[in-house]
Amino acid sequence: MEDDRARKYFSCNDRERAAFEAGIKLGTIYHQFVGAPVSLRNVESLEKAIEEGCRVQPFVESCTVKISREKIREKRNEYNYTTLSPSMLDVELIIRYREVRLKARLKWVEELRYPLMFIEEVFEGTRRIDGD
Amino acid sequence: MEDDRARKYFSCNDRERAAFEAGIKLGTIYHQFVGAPVSLRNVESLEKAIEEGCRVQPFVESCTVKISREKIREKRNEYNYTTLSPSMLDVELIIRYREVRLKARLKWVEELRYPLMFIEEVFEGTRRIDGD
Amino acid sequence: MEDDRARKYFSCNDRERAAFEAGIKLGTIYHQFVGAPVSLRNVESLEKAIEEGCRVQPFVESCTVKISREKIREKRNEYNYTTLSPSMLDVELIIRYREVRLKARLKWVEELRYPLMFIEEVFEGTRRIDGD
Amino acid sequence: MEDDRARKYFSCNDRERAAFEAGIKLGTIYHQFVGAPVSLRNVESLEKAIEEGCRVQPFVESCTVKISREKIREKRNEYNYTTLSPSMLDVELIIRYREVRLKARLKWVEELRYPLMFIEEVFEGTRRIDGD
Repeated sequence: MEDDRARKYFSCNDRERAAFEAGIKLGTIYHQFVGAPVSLRNVESLEKAIEEGCRVQPFVESCTVKISREKIREKRNEYNYTTLSPSMLDVELIIRYREVRLKARLKWVEELRYPLMFIEEVFEGTRRIDGD
Repeated sequence: MEDDRARKYFSCNDRERAAFEAGIKLGTIYHQFVGAPVSLRNVESLEKAIEEGCRVQPFVESCTVKISREKIREKRNEYNYTTLSPSMLDVELIIRYREVRLKARLKWVEELRYPLMFIEEVFEGTRRIDGD
Repeated sequence: MEDDRARKYFSCNDRERAAFEAGIKLGTIYHQFVGAPVSLRNVESLEKAIEEGCRVQPFVESCTVKISREKIREKRNEYNYTTLSPSMLDVELIIRYREVRLKARLKWVEELRYPLMFIEEVFEGTRRIDGD
Repeated sequence: MEDDRARKYFSCNDRERAAFEAGIKLGTIYHQFVGAPVSLRNVESLEKAIEEGCRVQPFVESCTVKISREKIREKRNEYNYTTLSPSMLDVELIIRYREVRLKARLKWVEELRYPLMFIEEVFEGTRRIDGD
């Protein structure tokens, strides 16, 4: 997954690039999938599709998506399903760009009433995030 | 999957209702998922998520989604993936509304240069479509 | 806006076709635009874009979109905007297919806890809907 | 547009934060609006809605969206419209986060066959980008 030909378009350092790529991926997940039909019957296949769709994009080392079963139950309607809303999503993403690893997150933050996307950790070096 | 409380809002017969429901589902698939990241690595999970997301909606008896591997290969870019485009989709849908069954389709029609959504068959009675 | 070359793909009458086309358009609006960033500052341009995007599609005679300012205010967050949710939308659509006119609607129905899409009226003839 | 309460969630410097926010906004534009119906008749209202929808989000100083009329013409079908595709978009975005300004871009890069999102410039201080 090289981007030698793309790199000349960028004016930023590797950490900023990693942050930019993380933002793209979280914006993508949110705006591609919010609104999708979801119930307890298809929630697993939707989680899996979002995760795998994220991982095919450049510089994604890992992606984990959890959709709240509890919020699906609360929003259930006459027809026994609902549509994916921002407050249901919890996404953890690790971007690797060259020597930089960056961990980002999308989750509903109740005190802000907002599905916050944020950077939990950035570091350089070969150490992996999450302990190895 | 009843809709006794919803039915009073409708002024149409059961065949028209089935046609309306089919249109909704195909419009949903197209506009929810076009643009999603796709490559040969995640195409199966994306197909499955679209199918299952369709089936949780009311009056869907079955839904089959095929995404063209050939067109994914043609569109592959620098980063070895692409995004779902209308011409990649082939969807078959069977709606059942009370005594009516209706088969609808979304597929790229080259002579129109258009991802056509159309009704292949409508009939009433207990016979199932596709032979049983 | 003819569809002589498309018509051969369809097995249904003109009323069913009109119902199908209405369903497509409402599914399109919902799944294309739910999730879009919205506040009191951009609500008008979003309404206009949804309406005009609907009208460029085949067989649409008119389309009116209202997004609830009240619900935007209720959902406002830390950052003073929110994203378009299904309960904010009220859409009125008139489809004309040959001699058939059909009026369809998308609006939040509180008793169903559901953004119901429904057919309000179908008729044949040259009379316009809404009185002229 | 403060985010004092949000800031504690972030572990990064202001330049990285600006890059992250730029990525979010470009991912949002792409995945919210690709697939929307577009023709020469509604292209202006779609551009305006995308721009204004971007500007209501936090830390956006300016956003300019151009949709290629030429590519709309090329893709026109039987029904005289098409849907927004990635190659039609040219977006310029300026993010301001505290003392950092960052200019980002989304445009089709023919040599990569890819709608590249990239960072054109980052700097700190009170000077505005684009010369004033």
